[in-house]
Amino acid sequence: MPSQFDPPSGTRDFLAADYAKREWAFGVLRSVFYSYGFEPLQTPAFERVDVLLGKYGDEADKLVFKILRRGEHEASGEADLALRYDMTVPLARVMAAHGGQLPTPYKRYAIGPVWRADRPGRGRYREFTQCDVDILGSTSPLADAEILCTHHDAMAALGMRDFTILLNSRKVLAGLLEVSDVPDELGSGVLTSLDKLDKMSPREVTDELTGRGLAEQSAAELVAMMTAEDAADRIRTALKPSEAGMAGLEELDDVLAFASSQIPPGRIAFSPRMVRGLSYYTGPIWELEAAGVPGSIGGGGRYDHLIQQLGGPDVPATGTSLGIERILMLLPDEAAGRPGPVDVAVTVLGPELAEASFGLAAQARSAGLRASVYLGSSGKLGKQLRWAADLGARWCLIYGNAERQAGTVTVRDLVSAEQEAVPSGEVAEYLAARAAADG
Amino acid sequence: MPSQFDPPSGTRDFLAADYAKREWAFGVLRSVFYSYGFEPLQTPAFERVDVLLGKYGDEADKLVFKILRRGEHEASGEADLALRYDMTVPLARVMAAHGGQLPTPYKRYAIGPVWRADRPGRGRYREFTQCDVDILGSTSPLADAEILCTHHDAMAALGMRDFTILLNSRKVLAGLLEVSDVPDELGSGVLTSLDKLDKMSPREVTDELTGRGLAEQSAAELVAMMTAEDAADRIRTALKPSEAGMAGLEELDDVLAFASSQIPPGRIAFSPRMVRGLSYYTGPIWELEAAGVPGSIGGGGRYDHLIQQLGGPDVPATGTSLGIERILMLLPDEAAGRPGPVDVAVTVLGPELAEASFGLAAQARSAGLRASVYLGSSGKLGKQLRWAADLGARWCLIYGNAERQAGTVTVRDLVSAEQEAVPSGEVAEYLAARAAADG
Repeated sequence: MPSQFDPPSGTRDFLAADYAKREWAFGVLRSVFYSYGFEPLQTPAFERVDVLLGKYGDEADKLVFKILRRGEHEASGEADLALRYDMTVPLARVMAAHGGQLPTPYKRYAIGPVWRADRPGRGRYREFTQCDVDILGSTSPLADAEILCTHHDAMAALGMRDFTILLNSRKVLAGLLEVSDVPDELGSGVLTSLDKLDKMSPREVTDELTGRGLAEQSAAELVAMMTAEDAADRIRTALKPSEAGMAGLEELDDVLAFASSQIPPGRIAFSPRMVRGLSYYTGPIWELEAAGVPGSIGGGGRYDHLIQQLGGPDVPATGTSLGIERILMLLPDEAAGRPGPVDVAVTVLGPELAEASFGLAAQARSAGLRASVYLGSSGKLGKQLRWAADLGARWCLIYGNAERQAGTVTVRDLVSAEQEAVPSGEVAEYLAARAAADG
Repeated sequence: MPSQFDPPSGTRDFLAADYAKREWAFGVLRSVFYSYGFEPLQTPAFERVDVLLGKYGDEADKLVFKILRRGEHEASGEADLALRYDMTVPLARVMAAHGGQLPTPYKRYAIGPVWRADRPGRGRYREFTQCDVDILGSTSPLADAEILCTHHDAMAALGMRDFTILLNSRKVLAGLLEVSDVPDELGSGVLTSLDKLDKMSPREVTDELTGRGLAEQSAAELVAMMTAEDAADRIRTALKPSEAGMAGLEELDDVLAFASSQIPPGRIAFSPRMVRGLSYYTGPIWELEAAGVPGSIGGGGRYDHLIQQLGGPDVPATGTSLGIERILMLLPDEAAGRPGPVDVAVTVLGPELAEASFGLAAQARSAGLRASVYLGSSGKLGKQLRWAADLGARWCLIYGNAERQAGTVTVRDLVSAEQEAVPSGEVAEYLAARAAADG
């Protein structure tokens, strides 16, 4: 039941365990991107409305969170700023603002929240993390291949094994429309219908295509070719008369060959039916699918003119987006390791002993362990030992008057319940050795 | 000159070098907080307006970025959400929402952006990172001491050396007002005036105090005591008749003693004139000052009833805020290490050689190095070597037809300009050894 103290609809509070898992995953991603020579970029949470709106059409604009003007202008009810909707519009602005000081090609990644006023649902949030990797300034299929290798290695580093990369090309699709005599004005509608072949029967898709105005025979042939067992081979043959189509196939073959040292053959395949909705792609496109998960867990492609359309300079670009929220749902919670409990709990058995207890906790930290002193009001050992057990600590350091007089600390093993007197000055070495023995 | 492509006023784009420095600092902080047993907490960027507004008064409310309602409600010009203004209001909400599943005491840290529509200026931003460390659920001065130790160790871990912690107590200040016969209703105004003794002369402050309605003699005595060389000792004597004052002194002595194993004596001192503006503090308060920097670089204190006032349960609390934006300005850019250039640049001297070049880059990565392949359109070695040099790479791996026939790679040292033929399969080991020799 939603309470007045829940976070706003479609957003989440991340407590320790969730946070640890997310930070672990982001750290893994950063380190893969870094190893490929990508640079991080972080832009503000909001942009000016004129930068953000009108870039992806009215439907997208409706999902933008707009920020009210302030002070005397607040009463106008107008917005001057808006929360970022994706990472690409800010990238275009940054290219326009700082392009001169950026390397060419500019290889950048961005991991951070974006906001969309979508209807919240399972796995769909209004604040979610987006993770984009892009190369700006190279027209070569080498760049597409490097993006794919980076995406692949990032997935592998996260421990994902059971995923497939569907690869296609906008040029191949354009060639297909050309050899199937699809009139230009029907092109994008036809692609949209073909994209449904996973969910609808060939008959239904054929009907939809003729409904769009495509000739009966063209529609039937197109659907037959796309749904054939040997669709890829048939398409390769059919495309021979199309210059665009052949160029697309050559690019795909290049991308597959370049990436083959990193991406095992079974994990990537030419998938002619994968169309990828957005119209701005101009070359290779891809989508990742994970076993047993409907929809994609990431994808991207080449988008050579989008940066200019979004207000930046005219640079060729290719990039990918990792569906990190969906991937996080697939990862076992143990992936990140358990969020470490406190290793060492330290008693404080009286104010006069507190300074020494703080010092003991510092010794434990210097041994690389996580340590916490007792902060409650009880001076009783039994109660403090219960606190240590509740914390899930591995050891409890007991320091009372007896220990003070003896110059020792009682180190209690909270698993075996055995304890040992250790000279006060040797606690760091002792704990380091015990922790190493734990492995 | 501001351009249409600049980020919104008061916000920043963080390119690679800035980002690396910031992430390095945040990583250092997280690791210190973790070692003390603090848990991370991340809340959404925005809260409902009723959660956020009316908590710190009208002046603060004016600085809140409000988010316009969406869809059919947008035209109303009303806001239903607002960007978070600090980390404490969200903490209070989380305590109310999830308090039952949190440990007691709840030791949490939060590092993330907050937004305030302040007038931007040098070092003052509208989007800036706040870093808070708090303990909820302990009334003990042990908790205040642990917060201070954590804050101190975090500063030390960042490499800060030249800083001082000014320590005072709201109870001590209350005692001072009591023994100086300051009427209750003048109390907070008197403290505000005393806080100005750093910037104004004793005479001016005395005048301000009498202007507030304080008796001439009380004002003069109070200012004389606070500005005396031995102010701390005089205050200890003067407070003897005040129960609150003596309790405050005792707490301060406890905090100083408890923290003394971690904080060297010269770095922390009872500083009676440090008042700390906000009225919600109830016990020890502190501020950090850095040599040569006006104002504070962090601070905090005990605020036992604030969480309840902000809408959470009534839990005692103490915490500190690290002025991380100011601290980042003080840290040398080298603190984070240079943002690594690419270590290894790999030529691509023809499409038929690209797969092998990708594999060589992967070998370099497996040796822990950062590697990038050539993504341009030139097949000329000279041009690709210039690209490698421009990148600042340490080595360039050259793989042409001659190398392919010989089964080797030419590894060119871009510092010495010497090169060596290395068997293709041994590039990882070779580079690892060379990198280790570089240190």
